[in-house]
Amino acid sequence: MLKVPAHQVAGHQAGDGKLGPLVDDSGLFYKPLQSGERGSAEVTFYKSFSSNTRIPENIRRFFPVFHGTRVLEASDGSGLCPHLVLQDIVSGHLNPSVMDIKMGANTWPPQSPEDYIAKCLKKDRETASIQLGFRISGFQIYGSKESEFWKPDKQFFKSLSAQDVRLVLNKYVSSNASPDLGLNPNCAFASVVYGGSTGILAQLQQLKAWFEDQTIYHFYSCSVLMVYGQGGSGAEVKLVDFAHVVDGEGVIDHNFLGGLCSLIKFISDILTTPPDEYSTKACLQDSQNNQSFCDNGIHE
Amino acid sequence: MLKVPAHQVAGHQAGDGKLGPLVDDSGLFYKPLQSGERGSAEVTFYKSFSSNTRIPENIRRFFPVFHGTRVLEASDGSGLCPHLVLQDIVSGHLNPSVMDIKMGANTWPPQSPEDYIAKCLKKDRETASIQLGFRISGFQIYGSKESEFWKPDKQFFKSLSAQDVRLVLNKYVSSNASPDLGLNPNCAFASVVYGGSTGILAQLQQLKAWFEDQTIYHFYSCSVLMVYGQGGSGAEVKLVDFAHVVDGEGVIDHNFLGGLCSLIKFISDILTTPPDEYSTKACLQDSQNNQSFCDNGIHE
Repeated sequence: MLKVPAHQVAGHQAGDGKLGPLVDDSGLFYKPLQSGERGSAEVTFYKSFSSNTRIPENIRRFFPVFHGTRVLEASDGSGLCPHLVLQDIVSGHLNPSVMDIKMGANTWPPQSPEDYIAKCLKKDRETASIQLGFRISGFQIYGSKESEFWKPDKQFFKSLSAQDVRLVLNKYVSSNASPDLGLNPNCAFASVVYGGSTGILAQLQQLKAWFEDQTIYHFYSCSVLMVYGQGGSGAEVKLVDFAHVVDGEGVIDHNFLGGLCSLIKFISDILTTPPDEYSTKACLQDSQNNQSFCDNGIHE
Repeated sequence: MLKVPAHQVAGHQAGDGKLGPLVDDSGLFYKPLQSGERGSAEVTFYKSFSSNTRIPENIRRFFPVFHGTRVLEASDGSGLCPHLVLQDIVSGHLNPSVMDIKMGANTWPPQSPEDYIAKCLKKDRETASIQLGFRISGFQIYGSKESEFWKPDKQFFKSLSAQDVRLVLNKYVSSNASPDLGLNPNCAFASVVYGGSTGILAQLQQLKAWFEDQTIYHFYSCSVLMVYGQGGSGAEVKLVDFAHVVDGEGVIDHNFLGGLCSLIKFISDILTTPPDEYSTKACLQDSQNNQSFCDNGIHE
């Protein structure tokens, strides 16, 4: 029995007669092929990646398992449509807190058509991508049995500043996360979700080591998906969305890697900030360590 | 006695009645302030940096020593003009081989005027910047007493591909460097210039560790200058050109860092490629390790 995913936080979403991914009860995720080159590009990537013997096993686990393609009834009622059959990443987590982070300052592959570059560049500049090297595209955070999930609408993500991103990354690991910006995140799950030898920071650092060396793929407009279950359990990182992956041509993916290093720095800062500084104030202002160029009194 | 620098490889150059930097015999480099905001921005940077107590000493050595500003007769005969007084980086090297590498896929600070962004973006796309995360802006390589220096003109640098950059980085550490693309670089100085505990690779890795953490400055359009003396002696890295440095605002400089990681990968590859593969063929083609996405037979 196929159904609309309950925990999707970004991208095209099924429901209300729209085209989007579906899931089943066996842990599979069916993603309709995007029209034109994008759909075939993502299939090409999954086929290349899943058969590529040069991908280390400790890196392969960061990618959804690929189960081929299947023709299914599309969610928008338009009839039969080819779908990618992938591992459903969130299905193993109870009340999953999920964040989708689109990586890279530039989301456009260099050989794209001019109008596509202009469109992406506009969005990369309007959002935090150019400044941070990544942008948060969506999230849901589980609060409690009563409050359930906090899942902002698309509008929320259009104008997040660096300080907002810092605050949201704090709230993501808090048991008191809410849209109330005056409520200080308690970061109750920071050490278990972000920290430790198997936490998200350690996983991102493994990915970073691979990106410093791999010259096979350039992952434009790809996302890091962070997921953990109720109470902070089973935190994991996956990469998703490969419609704009291009040949690395012997060069590392410096665009993805730069953004990854930036994300790692944000998360490291959360882990090293003393708990009593987890206030909105600390989140919304740069700490002493991050004192700025202008604070030197040069720009008067 | 002020004179035109003998070993400048990029940027505005004095001589023929043009405005450019001058040097003296005491090891000082006089750089005329660029007009408008750029000139004052570079002074602001040097003042901020030289007085900033949060810069580690092992990082400070990668920047030219700043000796304030001085009003001097400009090289173009236009009269008195304020100059930055800096350490002359190449003066300590006999017959210096010099390379200027402009860092970052994007050379424009995010808050720049639209026309400036458009101009930079066009150049970043036409050159290797977007693809590699850096571009070679100029170099001179010392050959022998007879051949002296190989110093291509500006046109040479306008259309270097990734493969050309790999070849040039091989030639930079070769005793037989020449414009003849058919002549294989012997990489005679690779291990002494790039390698070892004090070589260029080790220096770039120290810089990388700092860039992974520092959130004070974003170094747009800044260059890594590599210099060594005749026979491969005294290899060193310096950062130069700070007219487009902006406040990091608590975020790492992912744009510079991504390019730096890419440059590190190119240089590491040269050090780990067996000497008998230092042929033009090896330089112009990706090795087995760099086998591409397309080689998997997916794109047919």
